[in-house]
Amino acid sequence: MGDLLGVAVLGAGHMGADHIRRLDQVVSGARVAAVADPDTARAREAVAGIEGVTVHADALAALDAPGVEAVLIASPGPAHEEALLAAFARRLPVLCEKPMVPDPAGALRVVEAEAGLGRRLAQIGFMRRYDAEYRRLKSLLDAGELGRPLMLHCTHRNVSSPPHFTSAMLIDSSVSHEIDAARWLLGQELAAVTVLRPAPSSGAPEGLWDPQFVVFETERGALVDVEVFVNCGFGYQVRCEAVGERGSARIGEEHGMSVTARGGARLEVPQDYLDRFADAYDREVQTWVDATRRGQVTGPGAWDGYAASVVAEAGVRSLNGAGRVAVDLAPRPELYARTGH
Amino acid sequence: MGDLLGVAVLGAGHMGADHIRRLDQVVSGARVAAVADPDTARAREAVAGIEGVTVHADALAALDAPGVEAVLIASPGPAHEEALLAAFARRLPVLCEKPMVPDPAGALRVVEAEAGLGRRLAQIGFMRRYDAEYRRLKSLLDAGELGRPLMLHCTHRNVSSPPHFTSAMLIDSSVSHEIDAARWLLGQELAAVTVLRPAPSSGAPEGLWDPQFVVFETERGALVDVEVFVNCGFGYQVRCEAVGERGSARIGEEHGMSVTARGGARLEVPQDYLDRFADAYDREVQTWVDATRRGQVTGPGAWDGYAASVVAEAGVRSLNGAGRVAVDLAPRPELYARTGH
Amino acid sequence: MGDLLGVAVLGAGHMGADHIRRLDQVVSGARVAAVADPDTARAREAVAGIEGVTVHADALAALDAPGVEAVLIASPGPAHEEALLAAFARRLPVLCEKPMVPDPAGALRVVEAEAGLGRRLAQIGFMRRYDAEYRRLKSLLDAGELGRPLMLHCTHRNVSSPPHFTSAMLIDSSVSHEIDAARWLLGQELAAVTVLRPAPSSGAPEGLWDPQFVVFETERGALVDVEVFVNCGFGYQVRCEAVGERGSARIGEEHGMSVTARGGARLEVPQDYLDRFADAYDREVQTWVDATRRGQVTGPGAWDGYAASVVAEAGVRSLNGAGRVAVDLAPRPELYARTGH
Amino acid sequence: MGDLLGVAVLGAGHMGADHIRRLDQVVSGARVAAVADPDTARAREAVAGIEGVTVHADALAALDAPGVEAVLIASPGPAHEEALLAAFARRLPVLCEKPMVPDPAGALRVVEAEAGLGRRLAQIGFMRRYDAEYRRLKSLLDAGELGRPLMLHCTHRNVSSPPHFTSAMLIDSSVSHEIDAARWLLGQELAAVTVLRPAPSSGAPEGLWDPQFVVFETERGALVDVEVFVNCGFGYQVRCEAVGERGSARIGEEHGMSVTARGGARLEVPQDYLDRFADAYDREVQTWVDATRRGQVTGPGAWDGYAASVVAEAGVRSLNGAGRVAVDLAPRPELYARTGH
Repeated sequence: MGDLLGVAVLGAGHMGADHIRRLDQVVSGARVAAVADPDTARAREAVAGIEGVTVHADALAALDAPGVEAVLIASPGPAHEEALLAAFARRLPVLCEKPMVPDPAGALRVVEAEAGLGRRLAQIGFMRRYDAEYRRLKSLLDAGELGRPLMLHCTHRNVSSPPHFTSAMLIDSSVSHEIDAARWLLGQELAAVTVLRPAPSSGAPEGLWDPQFVVFETERGALVDVEVFVNCGFGYQVRCEAVGERGSARIGEEHGMSVTARGGARLEVPQDYLDRFADAYDREVQTWVDATRRGQVTGPGAWDGYAASVVAEAGVRSLNGAGRVAVDLAPRPELYARTGH
Repeated sequence: MGDLLGVAVLGAGHMGADHIRRLDQVVSGARVAAVADPDTARAREAVAGIEGVTVHADALAALDAPGVEAVLIASPGPAHEEALLAAFARRLPVLCEKPMVPDPAGALRVVEAEAGLGRRLAQIGFMRRYDAEYRRLKSLLDAGELGRPLMLHCTHRNVSSPPHFTSAMLIDSSVSHEIDAARWLLGQELAAVTVLRPAPSSGAPEGLWDPQFVVFETERGALVDVEVFVNCGFGYQVRCEAVGERGSARIGEEHGMSVTARGGARLEVPQDYLDRFADAYDREVQTWVDATRRGQVTGPGAWDGYAASVVAEAGVRSLNGAGRVAVDLAPRPELYARTGH
Repeated sequence: MGDLLGVAVLGAGHMGADHIRRLDQVVSGARVAAVADPDTARAREAVAGIEGVTVHADALAALDAPGVEAVLIASPGPAHEEALLAAFARRLPVLCEKPMVPDPAGALRVVEAEAGLGRRLAQIGFMRRYDAEYRRLKSLLDAGELGRPLMLHCTHRNVSSPPHFTSAMLIDSSVSHEIDAARWLLGQELAAVTVLRPAPSSGAPEGLWDPQFVVFETERGALVDVEVFVNCGFGYQVRCEAVGERGSARIGEEHGMSVTARGGARLEVPQDYLDRFADAYDREVQTWVDATRRGQVTGPGAWDGYAASVVAEAGVRSLNGAGRVAVDLAPRPELYARTGH
Repeated sequence: MGDLLGVAVLGAGHMGADHIRRLDQVVSGARVAAVADPDTARAREAVAGIEGVTVHADALAALDAPGVEAVLIASPGPAHEEALLAAFARRLPVLCEKPMVPDPAGALRVVEAEAGLGRRLAQIGFMRRYDAEYRRLKSLLDAGELGRPLMLHCTHRNVSSPPHFTSAMLIDSSVSHEIDAARWLLGQELAAVTVLRPAPSSGAPEGLWDPQFVVFETERGALVDVEVFVNCGFGYQVRCEAVGERGSARIGEEHGMSVTARGGARLEVPQDYLDRFADAYDREVQTWVDATRRGQVTGPGAWDGYAASVVAEAGVRSLNGAGRVAVDLAPRPELYARTGH
């Protein structure tokens, strides 16, 4: 397919370093051209052994580095808005990790900026859309085999939450994946959200509302419920059951090798999201690279990032005692009329 | 074990006839001594070929028939209260099909009558407590292997609803099983209920709110959610996932023979409750007969029937627009202090 | 269905005592009328609390005891031939535990004696024919859904073997179940057998050839392979996969409750055959009682007991170094022309 | 990782074209530098749109083309020996599709040629070693969790066989995968083989012995049985159960999305090997490219290709009526002393 796509990676933390490795060693057709991180030692370490890459403390400098044709944003969420707007100004295609922009107002500014350009440049890192099982479920629903979807039952469990994880982050960090997946699978916006708080698990840090049970209502009357439990202790489980008028389908069940030994027959449960969704990340980035080299944007876009941000904020308000909270989206710009899902 | 227990069966409809067949041909240690049904032709047909049984139009007459030592009530719900009180008056042990008494006030009168006797005589027909998988889940929870239970996720699906099934019956007939199962599994009363109504399936009769999504809160802060969908079209599915502080457990998954042929690998789904729960009914009645012959009552009792009735009525009010409805139980009589669950 | 069938139980060991309990407490329509065991103390203990039963040291005396209308033989295998012939002489219907008669010559004498009577009286205790999953597999094969059967792959594993278990007993005690099941499922006789001996497991007693791998060829060219491993250490597993021209089907997979906790998702494996096949034993005896009260014999008969004995003996010769051994059956008497399978 | 590895691909048929696509679009760190096929039009089509690649009718010419640093052999089996020897002469690392060389004598010449060089250059395309489930099974066995392996039960089914598929090809083309997998999983050579022939399926072409049942004995007394059925009609199934002294493990079970709709709960069965093993092919080639760029050979080698060829030839003799056939391997050259598995 010709020359390799030169990518500037912003952020060299856990996620950024993983994307650098992916671009260098896994994905075909791309190369890391520049990296930016305020901690330049960390940035340097992340690109050790890779040739032809420049290291920057400043994100905008990386966008202007030689050979940069596209941007992958893996810096902390509060830095995303400036980086996205800078990429737009340079007409650079961009893959931006979620959350696109944490606050709805900032997210709307990004939407409006891109809409003002009149062309799509941004893809948002909702990688579940690239998971093989989610894609089969989407195909099944789109083919109408189950009839009209009525409900989604979702489970999202982590072994344990990282330090400083807050009750709100169960919604705006964890459930944000289900928010996008539900919008995409159903092809509908979410119209309201209610967060219920069972008595917290003693396995969760003091003061953390964990687990939570979240119920979304869609604009056309479907229900989406999500158990989110980030200190379940035993594994990383992401499951979804879609219930339609004529049948149901489930993804995310344990599979792989089964072992029968003293104690029963067992299947392994993945322990973290990189294990469960490694292929999805690879496919996401490969697909983005391929589309970018063809001059296209094919994945979830800025509107999806904005909608997720608005729904998550409504969820946090419900968590904090507001009961059922309606979701209030801005009018959808023409540019996103037939994209996003 | 000596002589066969003589049982009077009240009601010879679908359920009554099935219990007559069970007492005669399946269960050990009992015999049908009398049967009552206003439609005596139907009663006579149900006991055809059984020796030593008398047929009655009047339920109370059957209780006084020769050889009657215990009563099985399978008549319509509105007739239960009178039959139960009559059995109590005669000190006859009784197995009463659910609902014990449809309205909470009547159910409370039954509780008070039995409490007044100072001894338990009634067992209520919540047969899930006798299903092998439910029993294993109960044992697992009681053993504390999963830690404190936090949530139950339940599914209750039927192929299609019978004629004249109403939106309220999804709660007070179908979900009543989950109401009792949740109380029993968790060892807690249900304290509040919220019924959500997705857009109805086009496979359901006009005007029926089907499916519904019901969320219960227990007195100690656990959540129980139930998808009830009585016109799902494809099978009878009763599933339950218990989520505890240290693990989760699921029952009701399809199993049995798997067939691989064109189209994939498939497992059969049972088509009705008699298929799925045939063993549970057999075990329920066998256990009742055995306990009765020993002079004991071991199963769910009148308090469980009363509590189910109160919770179901609250659920119907929520379905009809009352939002979250608190459950208000009468004080629990001493007699039921350590029984029921 | 009228009076209870009076049954004489011969043998009050592990299996006999279990059948006595079953006839007394589980099965409908029968009662234990007599019991015989050389160890009369053991016999007396097995019927403690049961009314109307006589205890005998001598099996034949039990057959002549008052109220005996049918016989259940659970004595050691070498005593079966005499007991069967005595039952035939008295025209008593009989349910005989496997092996019907351990040696083929004796088994043939039983066949000839019953054939001489011109009517069937004996049912042999191949209880897998009463297991729900085996029955579904049989129905599937008979319905032709998989096309003509080409192969059966069977697994037969026990946690550990009892004391004094010999290498030959892996064939004539354990695999004898697969011998009958294969004949029944396929509706064909087994024509040859080859036993292969992998290097023994260090978990097996010194000198025991365990596991073994047995390959049967049927009269119409199907193959049946059996892994038998009686010291597998982890559970009791009996599985069967039938492979037909158009598909395959499997039974005996683990199922029931699945638990997800540290270490993965697990399913329990039953630990012994009474756990796995409890329902099959109940159904076998109930069906035999029901048929006997109707004056019929519906289960596997003396011919099946004879054929199993001949095939097992050929297997033991193969195990002992004879390579592939052809199975040589006597001509099939008219009486068994269309029964047995 | 620096410059892309220039690969000459020999053969532009189905498999060659797929590898060209993989090198160009999927794998990181390599590029197609040359392609050879007697049908140069086909070769040209396979590399359409790829820059910097030369097209050749002659395989050896491709080896000498500019920029070629490694070779991928995907030409027909009979052409492999010459290509391998030519690559060795040029000291070019090579990935050779299976069978390495169809006849054992030619395979041995390749082994001896490489042994003569004193360094390994060849990797053979046994891609199951790169399948995620096979790798987990290998890890489990190597970790000793199941104890010493006693048996492998394998299933290898295809929807239908290609035109001109012969009875011998069930062994030397299909089962050759199990031959390598068994050697690798067990770390032992196969010492004998017996092929059994059930009555052929009516779904197989006239005259084809399909299915077959193959039993291998390893040098240390383990058994490996394989059902191979290449016209099973319903899907592509590759399963393996390893039975050890302390437990068993299974891979290749259906998984992914489960759909419950009229007819039961079903899982999809893959329809061909590219579907089932797509990831394994990708990983195989990526791993080969990575190792080659580091100057290493890490995968299955010429000795494995030779051993598979000898075992397959013994299997074909057994199929043709020779009964149990012992496997006779040449002495293993020093070079392969601790590699291959």
